Amino acid sequence: MLDIPISKQKAIGIDIGGTNTVFGIVDHRGEISYRGAIATRKHEHIEDYIDELCTAIAPAIAINQTGTVNYIRGIGIGAPNGNYYSGKIEYAPNLPWTGEIPLAKLIQDKLSLPAALTNDANAAAVGEMTYGAAKGMRDFIMITLGTGVGSGIVVNGQLVYGHDGFAGELGHTIIIPNGRKHWSTGFHGSLETYASATGVRITALELLEKYKDKPSLLRKYEESEIDSHIIYDCAVQGDEIAKETFLFTGEILGKALANFVMFSSPEAIVLFGGLSKAGKFIFEPTRKHMEENLLPIFRNKIKLIPSELKESDAAILGASALVWELK
Amino acid sequence: MLDIPISKQKAIGIDIGGTNTVFGIVDHRGEISYRGAIATRKHEHIEDYIDELCTAIAPAIAINQTGTVNYIRGIGIGAPNGNYYSGKIEYAPNLPWTGEIPLAKLIQDKLSLPAALTNDANAAAVGEMTYGAAKGMRDFIMITLGTGVGSGIVVNGQLVYGHDGFAGELGHTIIIPNGRKHWSTGFHGSLETYASATGVRITALELLEKYKDKPSLLRKYEESEIDSHIIYDCAVQGDEIAKETFLFTGEILGKALANFVMFSSPEAIVLFGGLSKAGKFIFEPTRKHMEENLLPIFRNKIKLIPSELKESDAAILGASALVWELK
Repeated sequence: MLDIPISKQKAIGIDIGGTNTVFGIVDHRGEISYRGAIATRKHEHIEDYIDELCTAIAPAIAINQTGTVNYIRGIGIGAPNGNYYSGKIEYAPNLPWTGEIPLAKLIQDKLSLPAALTNDANAAAVGEMTYGAAKGMRDFIMITLGTGVGSGIVVNGQLVYGHDGFAGELGHTIIIPNGRKHWSTGFHGSLETYASATGVRITALELLEKYKDKPSLLRKYEESEIDSHIIYDCAVQGDEIAKETFLFTGEILGKALANFVMFSSPEAIVLFGGLSKAGKFIFEPTRKHMEENLLPIFRNKIKLIPSELKESDAAILGASALVWELK
Repeated sequence: MLDIPISKQKAIGIDIGGTNTVFGIVDHRGEISYRGAIATRKHEHIEDYIDELCTAIAPAIAINQTGTVNYIRGIGIGAPNGNYYSGKIEYAPNLPWTGEIPLAKLIQDKLSLPAALTNDANAAAVGEMTYGAAKGMRDFIMITLGTGVGSGIVVNGQLVYGHDGFAGELGHTIIIPNGRKHWSTGFHGSLETYASATGVRITALELLEKYKDKPSLLRKYEESEIDSHIIYDCAVQGDEIAKETFLFTGEILGKALANFVMFSSPEAIVLFGGLSKAGKFIFEPTRKHMEENLLPIFRNKIKLIPSELKESDAAILGASALVWELK
């Protein structure tokens, strides 16, 4: 490990998304001092992608070197289906490269710095623990409410990877048996079918259909336009159907969270991503139904809080946070 | 810590049940060399109970002393509502002492040996990891199928206690929303309402009622007699309703286990207790429904196995195993 004080060390965070790969240089407090990005899908061969990425990162490394002293402690990478144990991206459906990609090793060899890889939601959890709302917590659950529902679980101060690196797929736990069918897994009633952006949109459309004769601001929009942002805007303006969309979503999310609490009894559950921006519209029903479904010993003590990481920085911060965990 | 080889060290295991308190001296391989028991409910005051218990244990300690050398490394205690962090039994409904009982400290002070306390299911998990089917595993879940349904979860080689010591209440997670009402918590559809001995009995009675005209060996018994042993015996003899009772129970248990797998991705799930003795009648449907409800990345790799601890010894072994974890 580097023989310089941690206050002077830096971490590289790389987040590989379906469209863009973003990266940045981060200090131990979460200040980002350098940012860059390349397109993820330009290269058919992973080697060409790695070449372009490492060329883009090189200047950031150069400005953190003084003579022979390198202040960069390592590289953290968040990627879909990133496996912490193997350092590989394994069969990611949204990336251009198929099969198992030994990404951590490829980058580590190219840049001669230690590298660690995990999936986006796990990286978000480590980011929250290092720089955000879960700072100092040893037991918490991070739920990312985006296009899908992801999760990162921390127990005894460590991320839960499971025996194979795949732990923390809480979006796919079944909350409503025989419930709504998932568009991709085919499962019925998984949390993701209700609490993702896609799920919230479906709920709103179902409610508009169910209460056909009820006026709603949502009816001003084309069906294809309606998304969680528009539903939020309408809820803010007092629209009943928009508000009921959040009540229904919060009920299911709250019940799911109660089950998760009885698993790992976390100090807090941190909500991150689009839906969590709906503030009280989503937090209030979620908290209510979580509490109602908890054993008395768990009641009124689990914090349900929003992420404290700026959404635009969260991916880089999460990935970079892996570096401070490097042994 | 003791300055003698671990192969010569001994642990005291104490299990406090609603009726009896049993204890034993155990070596690091799980051999029990001394056994004793006292009644749990004889003393209204905890101090009197501790006096009797420690007096009963004293001879066992004496025979493990040579001159000034004491081979006993410490004391592990399993008790309902035992909290590992506080060392207290907290509001246990089935014990004669109310409120918070600082049990670990009381015994530690009396016997001048380090003591650790946890609840029964957690102790069973540590026992399984130390001496049984989960030996060498760093990630597994223990499900105890008894009068109730308990659980102990191990992640990264450590028991999951949660931020407050109460983690691992998987019997109270909701599997069937609006399902069967729990006789004590009032929750609807928790795992315990179906997969406990009580739940299995209710299922059999419901099926006997539902298929009123169908002959069944179970109809030879008084309703009050029917329990999971009798249901098992009838299933072995090919009784359809008894077999369907296990199919139904296994379906719900399997679905619950799938949700748990997507939380912590364990190497194995170990089933312990009465119902697990039903062998293939419970294991086959449970495995089938677990697999069907798992994401493809988890399929065909989670072991579903019975405990390897002899049921009569398991409570002492589990409690004693806490001692080898003492720091």
